[in-house]
Amino acid sequence: MSETINASTVRSKTSRMSSDKLAEIEQLLARRREGFSLEAPFYTDTQLFQFDTEAIFGQHWLFAASIAELPEPGDYVTVDYGPYSLIVLHNDDGGINVLHNVCRHRGARIMNQSSGTTGNLVCGYHSWTYSPEGELIYASIPGEMDFNKQCFALRRAHSRVVAGLIFVCLAEEPPEDFDHVSQIFEPYVAPHELTKTKVAYQQDLIEGANWKLVMENNRECYHCDGHPELLCSYFPTYGLTEDLVPPHLEEAWERSIQAEDVLRQRCQRYGLPYEEIEELDTRVVGIRIARDALDGEGESFSVDGRRLSKKLLGDLPDFRLGRCSMHLQPNSWFHFLSDHAITFAVFPIGVDRTLVRTTWLVADDAVEGVDYDLQQLTHTWEQTNTQDQELVELAQRGISSPVYEQGPYMRSEYQVEAFINWYIQRAREYMP
Amino acid sequence: MSETINASTVRSKTSRMSSDKLAEIEQLLARRREGFSLEAPFYTDTQLFQFDTEAIFGQHWLFAASIAELPEPGDYVTVDYGPYSLIVLHNDDGGINVLHNVCRHRGARIMNQSSGTTGNLVCGYHSWTYSPEGELIYASIPGEMDFNKQCFALRRAHSRVVAGLIFVCLAEEPPEDFDHVSQIFEPYVAPHELTKTKVAYQQDLIEGANWKLVMENNRECYHCDGHPELLCSYFPTYGLTEDLVPPHLEEAWERSIQAEDVLRQRCQRYGLPYEEIEELDTRVVGIRIARDALDGEGESFSVDGRRLSKKLLGDLPDFRLGRCSMHLQPNSWFHFLSDHAITFAVFPIGVDRTLVRTTWLVADDAVEGVDYDLQQLTHTWEQTNTQDQELVELAQRGISSPVYEQGPYMRSEYQVEAFINWYIQRAREYMP
Amino acid sequence: MSETINASTVRSKTSRMSSDKLAEIEQLLARRREGFSLEAPFYTDTQLFQFDTEAIFGQHWLFAASIAELPEPGDYVTVDYGPYSLIVLHNDDGGINVLHNVCRHRGARIMNQSSGTTGNLVCGYHSWTYSPEGELIYASIPGEMDFNKQCFALRRAHSRVVAGLIFVCLAEEPPEDFDHVSQIFEPYVAPHELTKTKVAYQQDLIEGANWKLVMENNRECYHCDGHPELLCSYFPTYGLTEDLVPPHLEEAWERSIQAEDVLRQRCQRYGLPYEEIEELDTRVVGIRIARDALDGEGESFSVDGRRLSKKLLGDLPDFRLGRCSMHLQPNSWFHFLSDHAITFAVFPIGVDRTLVRTTWLVADDAVEGVDYDLQQLTHTWEQTNTQDQELVELAQRGISSPVYEQGPYMRSEYQVEAFINWYIQRAREYMP
Repeated sequence: MSETINASTVRSKTSRMSSDKLAEIEQLLARRREGFSLEAPFYTDTQLFQFDTEAIFGQHWLFAASIAELPEPGDYVTVDYGPYSLIVLHNDDGGINVLHNVCRHRGARIMNQSSGTTGNLVCGYHSWTYSPEGELIYASIPGEMDFNKQCFALRRAHSRVVAGLIFVCLAEEPPEDFDHVSQIFEPYVAPHELTKTKVAYQQDLIEGANWKLVMENNRECYHCDGHPELLCSYFPTYGLTEDLVPPHLEEAWERSIQAEDVLRQRCQRYGLPYEEIEELDTRVVGIRIARDALDGEGESFSVDGRRLSKKLLGDLPDFRLGRCSMHLQPNSWFHFLSDHAITFAVFPIGVDRTLVRTTWLVADDAVEGVDYDLQQLTHTWEQTNTQDQELVELAQRGISSPVYEQGPYMRSEYQVEAFINWYIQRAREYMP
Repeated sequence: MSETINASTVRSKTSRMSSDKLAEIEQLLARRREGFSLEAPFYTDTQLFQFDTEAIFGQHWLFAASIAELPEPGDYVTVDYGPYSLIVLHNDDGGINVLHNVCRHRGARIMNQSSGTTGNLVCGYHSWTYSPEGELIYASIPGEMDFNKQCFALRRAHSRVVAGLIFVCLAEEPPEDFDHVSQIFEPYVAPHELTKTKVAYQQDLIEGANWKLVMENNRECYHCDGHPELLCSYFPTYGLTEDLVPPHLEEAWERSIQAEDVLRQRCQRYGLPYEEIEELDTRVVGIRIARDALDGEGESFSVDGRRLSKKLLGDLPDFRLGRCSMHLQPNSWFHFLSDHAITFAVFPIGVDRTLVRTTWLVADDAVEGVDYDLQQLTHTWEQTNTQDQELVELAQRGISSPVYEQGPYMRSEYQVEAFINWYIQRAREYMP
Repeated sequence: MSETINASTVRSKTSRMSSDKLAEIEQLLARRREGFSLEAPFYTDTQLFQFDTEAIFGQHWLFAASIAELPEPGDYVTVDYGPYSLIVLHNDDGGINVLHNVCRHRGARIMNQSSGTTGNLVCGYHSWTYSPEGELIYASIPGEMDFNKQCFALRRAHSRVVAGLIFVCLAEEPPEDFDHVSQIFEPYVAPHELTKTKVAYQQDLIEGANWKLVMENNRECYHCDGHPELLCSYFPTYGLTEDLVPPHLEEAWERSIQAEDVLRQRCQRYGLPYEEIEELDTRVVGIRIARDALDGEGESFSVDGRRLSKKLLGDLPDFRLGRCSMHLQPNSWFHFLSDHAITFAVFPIGVDRTLVRTTWLVADDAVEGVDYDLQQLTHTWEQTNTQDQELVELAQRGISSPVYEQGPYMRSEYQVEAFINWYIQRAREYMP
């Protein structure tokens, strides 16, 4: 784990919103009804969206990209969280610098591509040039005598890289428990050696829904009948407990119990962590991580559960390792398998528009067409994402009706409620 | 006439708007200048549009569809009035149920198509299933013990079906005079037997103008020089009184007087109501209905006034019955002819966007290509609608200029003024 | 110079904005930091955009078009400044009338085309007909007794025509120093005889940036490395002073000094004004005008500096006259050359959308394909405009980030600062 501490971060906890609006939001937060979905303004009010960009995206650790998206020194990606734009740059020391994508001269966006390779960072407007650390090193200013370039470095954000996953934080003082949480998940993720993977495919979906609806949708499988491809590898009893299994699923239940037993023993044999850890709303960096068996061959997200890439990730000893799934608040989830990994990052665009970026990673020596078929590799989650897009857009449209009222969460939706609990706590903490 | 009384309607007369904004609107209403068009904010201000959705569309009887659009049990259409979405459903008893299109679980829109056929109503998100009456009858909730499905029925709206026309009301207590008004117009419309018609064609036009400009445009023929197709069947003296007829129209005036005489006698012979009834701004359910002669053959909206469908509607005894035209506040107008009928419904979308839905109905046993030519049937009003769209968009654009000021209504625009009178009265009544 | 004084202009200095918002803007104006770019709300806040349309576009002299765009009596163009729409009409006396494009009946936009030829002005809605002076001369109103047409003339705006350039002012009392300023620039522009030119080409670019970013971009050549085509005719030392010339540009410096000498002598010989006059922020009608030599042949904006049209404008005696460039606050700039002229007009559309209209004028007897090649004529500035569009859009995007802060202007950007000075002064003066 590499760490970057930045002296010149920007955001303080002072809201740019009017005190009237903050008071209105405080009332909405105060009358939150436990066990029920949020009131409509949380999903439809543009000022509440601005609040979210401040209180959630401006204050917390956010997943940005995996190292496979910028493998070489000089590689960069740009990511936008609402109105914020960041350059995530692989520096010459192998570390990651995160810089606000705003020139200090007249405010132009510096890097206008979603990814690329660069040496210094040159603004396209007047060629102000910054080092990869963000220092202003060149500005063609004939005769400008009293100009102190040191005062005009790019604004930086905090960043951490854990097991090949890059996280950023825009707050001046990031939440402290990230270290603890990264110690939780690093042993699960590290064996998949994401630093030795490459991007097989990346899908950007712009969904017509508030970012919280996108997250809520990810946090339950109560709607998974709408995901026939995914249900090939998930057990049909997924989410049930023994007392709830209906007669026609008893056989599947037995099959899943056996598969979990075998997987647990296999993990113990290989020294791979297995147990579920769940702290979704009990800490500032909310997390859930667990390893679950898959149906069929139990190797990957395919129709029959068989591997989708012939190359194992890292030094993993076996293809039959199910899925190691991680969920982080507020904007990401992940599936780490033996043959590939998938990262999901959520970037809010507007009150009812959200970018969901899905990235498929395979071993860096896997050859497309030989070791894996790209269409097969991505099929299950491309379909699942498109189905989810339709579902969250139905939710956004329905909630926009004046007659919408808060509905009850079911037991199988407890992780949705945990997300909402986490959100409400963070929002309350942000209040002055 | 069938009637549905619903216990669980939703809207009360409590505004969701801020008291500041309501006070601002109250001032605008107070300084309304009689005989003149409204001030610009009524057409351009987004919060005034929200006010309209509450005070007008949330409180009054609205035309939704004709029974021909959902002829069989299980057939439904969805209609949206601003932010409200409704399912209008033909139930098994032959009646109409109107349900808010919002799932009680997590708020998803339930029916996402504009029309179709269904048994129970199944939400696409988590398969919550409602009866055609809106009762929650199924929710796949393993082990959910203390969940009382009776508390989660769909919200319903009031509805009435009169002579095959379906009206809805979102208010908790709908305006009382609908019964009276339906008794006024039923004798005019019933002989056309819309229950024995079918939809020949439906046109949806999205017009770039406030819904009130669309209505105002419908309420005068002062602009009808812009409708050459329509003027083939309307007399060129339409809207004039005897003292105003210019010399070059004296012949046409004589022709129209004669035609009206003949039509009156014919109606009396057949027992068809004929007289004009006009209460556009003197009651809550504003109405105008009358039977007028048409030029030429006097049968239909064709170039020479001849029939456009060979099948008479219902048991009508004659093709030469002119047009029976009905105008209702706030969102509809109709033409009932011997050979076909046309309904016009106005659905506001945003402050400067409005859906106008025009539906051509013919006898249910009329065969396209044999009894009627679809292009000829729809030609006059398709052209007229497109011309009107251009006109109201010119009005919206001009009114958006800061120099726009209220202009005077002419005598021939008295129905526009009646619409505005009605609107101002309803808006004032809504004020707390 | 023709002048039109209008009795019935509209705008007073009373803002339509709330006093709260005006107070907020007043604070922003008060804490303006000299030598630095403006704070973000000036570029991103929709209410500040509304303020600009009132305080700047509603109060000051604006360039609208050149006479070549409406050469004959009856010709007109429509121009929109934010929400204002104007008809600029060539009247029968050879003068220019400027009328608000809003019918006095029900507010419809009257002329919906960007240009054309007309006699009287007939509203497309109800055929209300206005004379070219704006008087209501016809309204088909049968029996309308007490209707005084004189009360319903079109609203007019002030206008001036100077050396073939048409300026308009929406204010009731236009700034007084326009007469003085027009006396400054008329001797420079008049010899190019724009009244004897024709439009060779007009380009409308809609740029995704606030109108002030478009103006600022025009007011410096610090970014001109991004304009390779333009740099063929501009000297590479453009904007430098002698003490700042780097060694590798000494030769170019010498070349430019020589060219300026030759041009000065030539202008003196021909009696053409030459000296730079610069009052960009020292008067209400801010101006800069000067004649500068061009590189290469020194005739026009071509790769080698040679003429782009074979016909001289007016009675100019020589092709080698460099460029006479004029910059006016708040919305225009111009290049007058011996063989063609280019006008640039900026029309704000929304807070982050601006129309830039560029018009190439050649001698009215120049024949396309014979005297000039249209593609060559327009190449340099079509490319330059497109490059500028990209640059200002980068600025708009970057400034939208919450971390944007005001950046320092360089010495070569003093005209940008002058524009901002001018803007801040005008905005402060508008405050109640």
